[in-house]
Amino acid sequence: MIRITPVLRVLGGIFIGFGLFMIPPLAFDWWAKAPTVGYFVGAIAASVFTGAVCIVLSGSGETFDLNRKQAFLATALGWLLVPCFAAIPFLGVGASWIDGYFESASGITTTGSTVLTGLDTMPEGILLWRSLLQWVGGYGIVAISVIIMPFLRVGGMQLFRAESTDSSEKILARGFDLARWIGFVYLGLSGACALGYGMFGMTAFDAVNHAMATVATGGFSTHDASFAYFKSSALEWVGVVFMIAGGLPFVAFIRTFRGGGQPIWNDVQARGLVFFIAAVALILAVTNSLENKVQILQAIRMAVFNVASIVTTTGFASTDYQLWGNFAIGAFFVITFVGSCSGSTAGGIKIYRLQILAKTAHSYLTRLISPSQVKVITYSTRRVGQDVEIAILAFLLAMLFTEVVFTLFLCWTGLDFMTSASAVAQAISNVGPGLGPIVGPSGNYKSLSDPAKMVIAFAMIFGRLEYFPFFILLTPAFWRR
Amino acid sequence: MIRITPVLRVLGGIFIGFGLFMIPPLAFDWWAKAPTVGYFVGAIAASVFTGAVCIVLSGSGETFDLNRKQAFLATALGWLLVPCFAAIPFLGVGASWIDGYFESASGITTTGSTVLTGLDTMPEGILLWRSLLQWVGGYGIVAISVIIMPFLRVGGMQLFRAESTDSSEKILARGFDLARWIGFVYLGLSGACALGYGMFGMTAFDAVNHAMATVATGGFSTHDASFAYFKSSALEWVGVVFMIAGGLPFVAFIRTFRGGGQPIWNDVQARGLVFFIAAVALILAVTNSLENKVQILQAIRMAVFNVASIVTTTGFASTDYQLWGNFAIGAFFVITFVGSCSGSTAGGIKIYRLQILAKTAHSYLTRLISPSQVKVITYSTRRVGQDVEIAILAFLLAMLFTEVVFTLFLCWTGLDFMTSASAVAQAISNVGPGLGPIVGPSGNYKSLSDPAKMVIAFAMIFGRLEYFPFFILLTPAFWRR
Repeated sequence: MIRITPVLRVLGGIFIGFGLFMIPPLAFDWWAKAPTVGYFVGAIAASVFTGAVCIVLSGSGETFDLNRKQAFLATALGWLLVPCFAAIPFLGVGASWIDGYFESASGITTTGSTVLTGLDTMPEGILLWRSLLQWVGGYGIVAISVIIMPFLRVGGMQLFRAESTDSSEKILARGFDLARWIGFVYLGLSGACALGYGMFGMTAFDAVNHAMATVATGGFSTHDASFAYFKSSALEWVGVVFMIAGGLPFVAFIRTFRGGGQPIWNDVQARGLVFFIAAVALILAVTNSLENKVQILQAIRMAVFNVASIVTTTGFASTDYQLWGNFAIGAFFVITFVGSCSGSTAGGIKIYRLQILAKTAHSYLTRLISPSQVKVITYSTRRVGQDVEIAILAFLLAMLFTEVVFTLFLCWTGLDFMTSASAVAQAISNVGPGLGPIVGPSGNYKSLSDPAKMVIAFAMIFGRLEYFPFFILLTPAFWRR
Repeated sequence: MIRITPVLRVLGGIFIGFGLFMIPPLAFDWWAKAPTVGYFVGAIAASVFTGAVCIVLSGSGETFDLNRKQAFLATALGWLLVPCFAAIPFLGVGASWIDGYFESASGITTTGSTVLTGLDTMPEGILLWRSLLQWVGGYGIVAISVIIMPFLRVGGMQLFRAESTDSSEKILARGFDLARWIGFVYLGLSGACALGYGMFGMTAFDAVNHAMATVATGGFSTHDASFAYFKSSALEWVGVVFMIAGGLPFVAFIRTFRGGGQPIWNDVQARGLVFFIAAVALILAVTNSLENKVQILQAIRMAVFNVASIVTTTGFASTDYQLWGNFAIGAFFVITFVGSCSGSTAGGIKIYRLQILAKTAHSYLTRLISPSQVKVITYSTRRVGQDVEIAILAFLLAMLFTEVVFTLFLCWTGLDFMTSASAVAQAISNVGPGLGPIVGPSGNYKSLSDPAKMVIAFAMIFGRLEYFPFFILLTPAFWRR
């Protein structure tokens, strides 16, 4: 059996933290005398109280550290349980429990699919709460993927393990310094983004909220029309810059600021992301321009914004790109899976996995022709071991398996195949919009059935934690001594 | 550079062989004075002449053997070029060259998608030619996958390499004995199937044609309505038995007849196939019965026939299962990829790959929890090496990559996303029907554009040869000395 007390302590800390994050939205709605005040007070009480109980139950006198099993369990439970508390404020604007869970899961996973409508007239505290959920969730995933994941050796993240700490089984102790640096970068990017949005015409409230949603690559807006509400190409370009910033490896930012000041462009993954977005946007702009007689510069602007939005897994929509034709629909479905860089706020497969995969495929084909030839694969400056190659293949299969199983569940609830497949795809990659009239960029998840909403919410959390923390919980070996 | 002469000689033999196979259909149409006679004569002349030229060009005095590169090239070219000759007779019933190529590729890959309509009134020679294409293609793929593929070490087929010949680079020399045994089994199954069909009411001509299409898991019918034409549940059950027989490992049949007579049921892959078909059919029968108020026994019969038809990659349709609801549509899309056993006439992922994958996944998850634990994976009585595990993962990725790229091509030609994705899925798995009104079980590929038909035809050939013979041709290493 796994020792539960350190897990309880971590969960307690998380619950209390999320409770305290509800204070700013509460202040907003208190000031505006909105009907949500009581719900925020209740939510704070519930999460702080539960957190305190967890900590008391966990006893004291122990270190704060987690071993592998405990890290898996704490991560999985944290993301599954936080939405239960985070959901409470949404009850105050008429949402059901399941709607509240969906919206909160969508927030902390930085997915950005919404079941709420009438955002433009909603209490500001609720809007701020949605943005904060994404913002905190975005910080959380960067911290987890930089500090914890490399030690769990899942999905190939072990490639990014710092050599000096290779042999440690104790995970959290050395992470605090890194966590602080990530926080600085995150705050800096968010502030710069808000300034940019404000400068080009957003109100201060809109600018702050959209900045949080942008840098977290979340995609919640304060308007039902999402980014299309602003009708400003300047704002769209600001959005493009900071969506991509949110999708870049934060460790590279830290190296730039802290270390010798080498430009982030030196990072092979960052280059790959920018190149990929540019290439896909160009192809879509040209086909859209030719097929639908759209002026080419406008087509480029629309393509860059929406491709960047999907590939960085943000999910802001400036237009319904489904109208660009069948090729665009197919392309948007495929790029939904791609994602951005490791150690960013983005979801999806991630650029480094695709880059390593391409090298692995090339080496494999060469070996098929000349079985005696053995080629060492390197990524950036590091040697890619076979354990990393296998971990990446395992990640892809886990993603595919999740996509298939959750899609069948959604079909079972009565949704058509394309809606189901794209809703699961966007959820596991934490993107936001899917395809079709319901879950597409101009649709809303509100009309889905309750079981469908829960399936999609779980898919978001599965994808956010990159599957293995959940698959591992399903093996008997996890629960044995 | 690769030495081309042995490749030319093999191709020459194949072209001449296919030319001779056109003689029986020619005889039928000669007898009936059908307008296709001239086309058959021309096709025979063209393929025998081209074959003879190839053999003359290849010189003489050498052995008939192929090395790895030559085996890859001969396989790929053989399947790409044969449809050029096989297409000619179809020009005699008004098909275009592209339609003829599509129909022939669909035949020799045992896919069974058709662009022809009005089958019920077509010259019998043409119908027989379609059946023969599948029948010969089915035999060819069993021979290749049992004799050649294990030596090319692709897709995990090396697992089935006979130990005694492990070190040989010469591929064809020892295969003739095995090829003869496969031929006996294939003839025996086809004869038994034709008898079964005749006994339960088909005409002799229909019985023979459908028997060839069944055992080859091809799916061409002599009627536009496919199996629904016969409206006979007895015939459907005969079909189920022999579709599954076509999807079983032929080596297991040979062991049964030749060796100690151990029942085929002992084969772990055969058991897996039957169990999978039964499980999926049961789930679909129950949901269809509940949702659409279908009587349960009828629902079971319909589900077993259509699930067996798709999983064995035959593709006969007895009804439009898309009317069973969204869950059925999603399920049929997913099982399109599954396929049957290695060394059968079926396409798809294949049961043994999924069985090994499940074991690999379990061992991987166990290792994530306890990194020190190393577990040896066995399949049937054999130890599964890491090369086999990686080859299977590589196969899946090659399939996924092909599915994505070909789907985007189809979307580009203007087809909607679900039609494109399912048309490619059925093509690479050599199934036959896709989803939607055009390529679905009650549709016809005739109305597709020429580029779309070519994309689907190439997808069939890619999938039939399990991708790697083509991917390898694209690497520079293949063309270097």
